[in-house]
Amino acid sequence: MSQRIGISMGDAAGVGPELACKICSDPAFTEHELIVYGNQRMLERVAEHCDIEIPKQIKEIACKNIESIKPGEINRDAGQLASDCIDAAIQDCMDKKIDAMVTCPIHKQALALAGSPFPGHTEILQDRCQADDSYMLLYDKKICVALATCHQSLASVPSSINKHDIVRLGELVHEFLIGIGHEKPQIAVCGLNPHAGEGGLFGDEETIINQAVQSLRDAGIQCSDALPPDSAFAPHMLEQFHAHLCMYHDQALIPFKALAFEYGVNLTLGLPIIRTSVDHGTAFDIAWQGKASPNSLKSAVEVAINLAHRRV
Amino acid sequence: MSQRIGISMGDAAGVGPELACKICSDPAFTEHELIVYGNQRMLERVAEHCDIEIPKQIKEIACKNIESIKPGEINRDAGQLASDCIDAAIQDCMDKKIDAMVTCPIHKQALALAGSPFPGHTEILQDRCQADDSYMLLYDKKICVALATCHQSLASVPSSINKHDIVRLGELVHEFLIGIGHEKPQIAVCGLNPHAGEGGLFGDEETIINQAVQSLRDAGIQCSDALPPDSAFAPHMLEQFHAHLCMYHDQALIPFKALAFEYGVNLTLGLPIIRTSVDHGTAFDIAWQGKASPNSLKSAVEVAINLAHRRV
Repeated sequence: MSQRIGISMGDAAGVGPELACKICSDPAFTEHELIVYGNQRMLERVAEHCDIEIPKQIKEIACKNIESIKPGEINRDAGQLASDCIDAAIQDCMDKKIDAMVTCPIHKQALALAGSPFPGHTEILQDRCQADDSYMLLYDKKICVALATCHQSLASVPSSINKHDIVRLGELVHEFLIGIGHEKPQIAVCGLNPHAGEGGLFGDEETIINQAVQSLRDAGIQCSDALPPDSAFAPHMLEQFHAHLCMYHDQALIPFKALAFEYGVNLTLGLPIIRTSVDHGTAFDIAWQGKASPNSLKSAVEVAINLAHRRV
Repeated sequence: MSQRIGISMGDAAGVGPELACKICSDPAFTEHELIVYGNQRMLERVAEHCDIEIPKQIKEIACKNIESIKPGEINRDAGQLASDCIDAAIQDCMDKKIDAMVTCPIHKQALALAGSPFPGHTEILQDRCQADDSYMLLYDKKICVALATCHQSLASVPSSINKHDIVRLGELVHEFLIGIGHEKPQIAVCGLNPHAGEGGLFGDEETIINQAVQSLRDAGIQCSDALPPDSAFAPHMLEQFHAHLCMYHDQALIPFKALAFEYGVNLTLGLPIIRTSVDHGTAFDIAWQGKASPNSLKSAVEVAINLAHRRV
């Protein structure tokens, strides 16, 4: 079934606009409608630099001082434009004018210059969608990780581990895996401590984690006991499980960045809308040169289409 | 130059004895002397099961009730024999009768049944060598990680981070890298927190880590600032650095087990002797069947030979 996917073009000084242009001419998506949330004049400027076509469908977002925006330079107006594109796409998702949204990278500092109180996409989405809890998931064909805790000090992680979040995240990950086509999802649940605590010798947060595992199983969700985190990402374990439920940022991101590159997708779970994103930054150093690989954006669009297809 | 390498055969109910037999007939080591610290009758029993040759050089270690030892069964006498083999090899290293020792896997529970107060090799070595501080390093051609903290709860890690240990470990890792033939070692130093603390926003232990980095640089050792741990193990970073100095067990072991398999070597840094080890366990499920791969033991012997060669 044809899906309508909104793509917010991200920070105009970065690689977002050229990736949005490239992806819209990708023959893989001809049966779907890709609509770029951006500014036509801005897209034209970038497309000319890169010698590529501009997208057929553009949802026009106004922007002042377009000519002041230059590749690789932090710019207040680029920050404002990026923010406005995201807001418009969220609104259209909420209003069901589009089936899902995909975001290109934004620049934190440009966003701050534009007066946005939000450090990134996740916070904007949480606010606009009035979501109680949301979680980050990173997806690649080789490895998929979901995070029970995210941007906080390592010292604060152990006391943040709680049954509610792990159960909620487990349910959302299960739903996501069904959404992308796994009929019987198998979830690996990581312990917090080395050797999963070695029977309480090196910490006991695994007791809480295993209580959450029991609740998930009671709800019919297939998942492992709290696994020793180090062996959880060995090749045979990655084959055995469709996703890993991780307790903290680097437990998830270290193996993800070691194993998945170019094709990674970043998702926000727990929102009332479907949102996927590239898993890379603005890449200011190669912006407007046509060099940036659209592979991550392509994966992000594919996942968004899959999820939208099955949600309907 | 020919080196004399002692190999402790490990727990007789595991895969250690057959690996020791296999490695001694490997043509890669014909110019060196490999001496197995074990029991001849025990080695004969295992070799017969696996249809392989016993080693030419055996340092005989007495054992009671040899016939009671069976593959894959925890056994008090196997624990005692394993412990005695290690002790003999350490003593011969200390007395310079051998140039280095390589250990095959032991079984914690068998060791405990034999009345040993030590949970593993590292603790035995620390005690027998009277080493003040020792650190674990895992080596593979693709990835090399050294651990500033090891078997302790994640909650206790942040307060364990201190300048002394990081500087000492940095010096030992530098020395190790020179020892295996890197003329200008480049060491990646990982931060503790996500995004290396994002400028203090998610923890500030990176301040201590960067003080240690400065001391290492003052001593002429090339190393990075405290890196965001997640991107530190991406492919281009692994190419750029010869080793990663890690702050806790899973920061090191997750990427190591995800990327290095079969050829991993475990080393103890900070001892007065050279000791390397396989990075796998006793594999009771396939013991005495001749199936176990000697690749990790082979790498461990190679590294021991390299280090011994350059130390002399």
